[in-house]
Amino acid sequence: MRLSVRAMPARLASLLLALSAAGPVVAAEAAPEVTVLTAHAIHTLDAARPRARAMAFDAGGRILAVGDAEALARRFPGARDLDLGDATVVPGLIDAHAHVGGLGLATLTADLVGTRDKAEVLQRLRDFARDLPPGAWLLGRGWDQNDWPEKTYPTAADLDAAFPERAVWLERIDGHASWANSVAMRAVGRDLSGDWQPDGGRILRDAAGRPTGIFIDAAAALVEDARPPLDEATAERALVLGMQAAVEHGLTGVHDAGIGLDQFKRYQRLADRGALPLRITAMAAGDGDALDALCRDGLYSHPSGRLQMRTVKVYADGALGSRGAALLADYSDDPGNRGLMLTPPEGLHAVVRKARDCGVQVAAHAIGDRGNREVLQAYADVLGDGAAGDHRWRIEHAQVLAPGDLPRLAGLGVIASMQPTHATSDMPWAEDRLGPERIVGAYSWRQLRDSGARLALGSDFPVEPVDPRLGLHAAVTRADAEGEPVGGWRPEEKLTAFEALRGFTLDAAYAGFAEDTVGSLAVGKRADFVVLAEDPLAVPPARLRGLVVLATYVDGEAVYTRAGHAD
Amino acid sequence: MRLSVRAMPARLASLLLALSAAGPVVAAEAAPEVTVLTAHAIHTLDAARPRARAMAFDAGGRILAVGDAEALARRFPGARDLDLGDATVVPGLIDAHAHVGGLGLATLTADLVGTRDKAEVLQRLRDFARDLPPGAWLLGRGWDQNDWPEKTYPTAADLDAAFPERAVWLERIDGHASWANSVAMRAVGRDLSGDWQPDGGRILRDAAGRPTGIFIDAAAALVEDARPPLDEATAERALVLGMQAAVEHGLTGVHDAGIGLDQFKRYQRLADRGALPLRITAMAAGDGDALDALCRDGLYSHPSGRLQMRTVKVYADGALGSRGAALLADYSDDPGNRGLMLTPPEGLHAVVRKARDCGVQVAAHAIGDRGNREVLQAYADVLGDGAAGDHRWRIEHAQVLAPGDLPRLAGLGVIASMQPTHATSDMPWAEDRLGPERIVGAYSWRQLRDSGARLALGSDFPVEPVDPRLGLHAAVTRADAEGEPVGGWRPEEKLTAFEALRGFTLDAAYAGFAEDTVGSLAVGKRADFVVLAEDPLAVPPARLRGLVVLATYVDGEAVYTRAGHAD
Repeated sequence: MRLSVRAMPARLASLLLALSAAGPVVAAEAAPEVTVLTAHAIHTLDAARPRARAMAFDAGGRILAVGDAEALARRFPGARDLDLGDATVVPGLIDAHAHVGGLGLATLTADLVGTRDKAEVLQRLRDFARDLPPGAWLLGRGWDQNDWPEKTYPTAADLDAAFPERAVWLERIDGHASWANSVAMRAVGRDLSGDWQPDGGRILRDAAGRPTGIFIDAAAALVEDARPPLDEATAERALVLGMQAAVEHGLTGVHDAGIGLDQFKRYQRLADRGALPLRITAMAAGDGDALDALCRDGLYSHPSGRLQMRTVKVYADGALGSRGAALLADYSDDPGNRGLMLTPPEGLHAVVRKARDCGVQVAAHAIGDRGNREVLQAYADVLGDGAAGDHRWRIEHAQVLAPGDLPRLAGLGVIASMQPTHATSDMPWAEDRLGPERIVGAYSWRQLRDSGARLALGSDFPVEPVDPRLGLHAAVTRADAEGEPVGGWRPEEKLTAFEALRGFTLDAAYAGFAEDTVGSLAVGKRADFVVLAEDPLAVPPARLRGLVVLATYVDGEAVYTRAGHAD
Repeated sequence: MRLSVRAMPARLASLLLALSAAGPVVAAEAAPEVTVLTAHAIHTLDAARPRARAMAFDAGGRILAVGDAEALARRFPGARDLDLGDATVVPGLIDAHAHVGGLGLATLTADLVGTRDKAEVLQRLRDFARDLPPGAWLLGRGWDQNDWPEKTYPTAADLDAAFPERAVWLERIDGHASWANSVAMRAVGRDLSGDWQPDGGRILRDAAGRPTGIFIDAAAALVEDARPPLDEATAERALVLGMQAAVEHGLTGVHDAGIGLDQFKRYQRLADRGALPLRITAMAAGDGDALDALCRDGLYSHPSGRLQMRTVKVYADGALGSRGAALLADYSDDPGNRGLMLTPPEGLHAVVRKARDCGVQVAAHAIGDRGNREVLQAYADVLGDGAAGDHRWRIEHAQVLAPGDLPRLAGLGVIASMQPTHATSDMPWAEDRLGPERIVGAYSWRQLRDSGARLALGSDFPVEPVDPRLGLHAAVTRADAEGEPVGGWRPEEKLTAFEALRGFTLDAAYAGFAEDTVGSLAVGKRADFVVLAEDPLAVPPARLRGLVVLATYVDGEAVYTRAGHAD
């Protein structure tokens, strides 16, 4: 690590030097066995001792003691001293729902997040295409027509003039709609005109029955299947880039929400090489090869403790932004449309039953109130008396619930895996979609928590930014990164800073069957922690989004240390 | 009401004029039947519609509609228009644990709150005594030796020089210790020397066995019984003063935590005269005449809806400040002392059983971890299978709980009736009394709420100030009225502003079996509400203590309206 201490406050500079000296513990003769860390505050998330000033861990990354600085100094006289001064230590943050490969790939594809109109989209695409070989597909992601003046879906024609010979394929911000140009559509070996629709998806068409270029949910597979596969080196590079971005933001764990067996094997190879800087809790994507592997070979855990898979991720419905979320009644801004079940109820029951029979945890994506109800019903039917057991089945997003369904999560022991930044990204238009009555059951983490459900928090990156500070901030303020609206959107749903932190640590660990090893700082657990310049439980909520991550530790080793500002 | 609009912002002035015009609805020919109120925001606390802009109520104080301003204006064309502009409306605040007569009496006795040493106590007593007739007892309350340099109990001798002939009797801030001079002790018709102690209390004595002047818990009754009773006019005046102070702070309901039949009859007479400005939910004091009346005559409800009694308040133990709270192990700062059960376990069982047999709700004062455990055990034993029923038994204070006992409240359906300002008043010394391990289970409203218990919030006035803004502020910030400590004491226990408001409204109403009529603003319920100059769910938490109460409404009538600043 290279440090520059110029133009840095003296306190921060000396702290960074301390962190630098405390880099990875290498197996050398002089390496001390024990490190004793002291800080302004350690928020342990351990209910028996929520706050401490010091923590000791061994060279293997096991926590030996949490407590008083003087007592620990006496108990471990030869220990390496890691004095963090005014900094605050919290358990390593865990993103309970994200897409690591997608985050990495996003850096390898055109970034369309935040584009204000189609002209800006085209400009970014032209810039990106300059480095592409001829004939290569131009991939992009992150557009959102709600941010554009016209607020309607774009068409292939919008792209064709600029890209008459190169296939262009652009994923919407929520991953539930994609936008193709005519070259990309021609690559599909099938006539996309007419009035047929693929199962679980929709091809938007004009009055003459011609595809407009927009493919909703499962319809995107038509184009996906036509594009040349990612080469292995790029796929691995995407994972490495995604994980690197994660640890730089204080994450020590990510639940990767749905991967195939190829991707899982990629993770395994990285784990075998000691190249996972954080803990990956992988979910098998639907009823596919990864679930089959779990059923055949049993639940998976890598000996390093950095990789596990024991979960299947299934999609009940689509997303709200693209009106693909399955609702019990019509969209308020689209009469006649109630969205889509991506997996019909009988299919949902089948995969959930298969998972249960294999001892696999289920994590079902459900956004709309119908999507959530179908999942709850499938869980109730399949679990039966087993609902009282330690199944830890989850609903991913749990975004819109009918009021009567809210308490069913707690009743069935189902975890609400929610993404606070979804609320603040969707708030400008969510009530348009849902109307004033249904909005009460939407993004309702306070009500869910009040009903006794456990909240595992995450970001859904790259749909939202990887930065968990934004999630903490959104959870506590119900305001976006600009602090709007003042006082928060539907402020009755706010969490406290402690609850938000718990959702990103202990309860996320619980959702990954990992609370015995990570998620809080207590004797016998792993020394996964984050060093923050300020105390997230003490700063005014608006400052949560600006917390400085000074270092990220996994198994007692720094996997990220902040370099100086003035490099 | 007299208004002065000089030196007042124009917006506030016009708002006060609007409130003035909207004074009590009198039964006159011209009185409109319906009022339609509009405000910046109405936080209804109704889960089905948490936020609205308008509310209609009839001349009888019944809410007719909550919703959109235009829709209500159309629906009630002839209605009186109460435009509250930028103000925010919340349900009337309910203090779930307080002492109305005590608050009024405090204004009729010497106020010793905040005295910094004994010299200041003597000065205030001398000032107060000037207006007293010769021979009258000098009563005072509010001293706290923890605020004095020596931090030890005072003695009778400290008072005797200044008051050699007048009885002086001064209650400690927490009501669990009192300080007498020698004249007051001589009024007790019994030798207070020796080594005997009264049941449930303690007379502090010197090495020679002489009483020092301090009487802990039940020992105070020895002196209380010796002093001339309060005359009826003064007792009623105290109630009226206490209720007036309450409505001026936005309270529309108080649970009066333990009164005798005399006091109850005083309330009844006031109710008969229409002189209760807010709703009183009285608790019968222990196994006394008021409980006997409930058992004989049944649960009580005045036809006006302003007075009910259906609860018995029993004391399990004493208080923490005076080391009278019953602990499972020794006080950390007083080895050998484990505090006192004011009602021994068998007595607790007996009164709880009696209450159950009479259909009376139980509210047991419990501060120490032993006090709380004994109450939980008595509740569990006596309720049996009835724990699953709608008993709504409460623990008052629920201040220190053994970690294993925390979830028992939710398990038994027991309400935690807590006072946020107790935490911030006690924080300077609470950990001295309890040590670093027990403190984790103390003032733990977040843990209790997480465990599924319902929180009814209050102030315990006059032990703490009547002002519920201080309670909201303490609940949300875990900081005192000066904002100390920055970031809050044990911030993991913070509530959100919405949760704090809920504890002072809907859940306090629930604790008083009144959530069908008050506690939220919904059709069919009573128009009990408070008009605040700012939105408590939107302001930064530090501003909660400075919220301006513009008006307090009960049954749709203003029982308090703020006068201009510049009178």
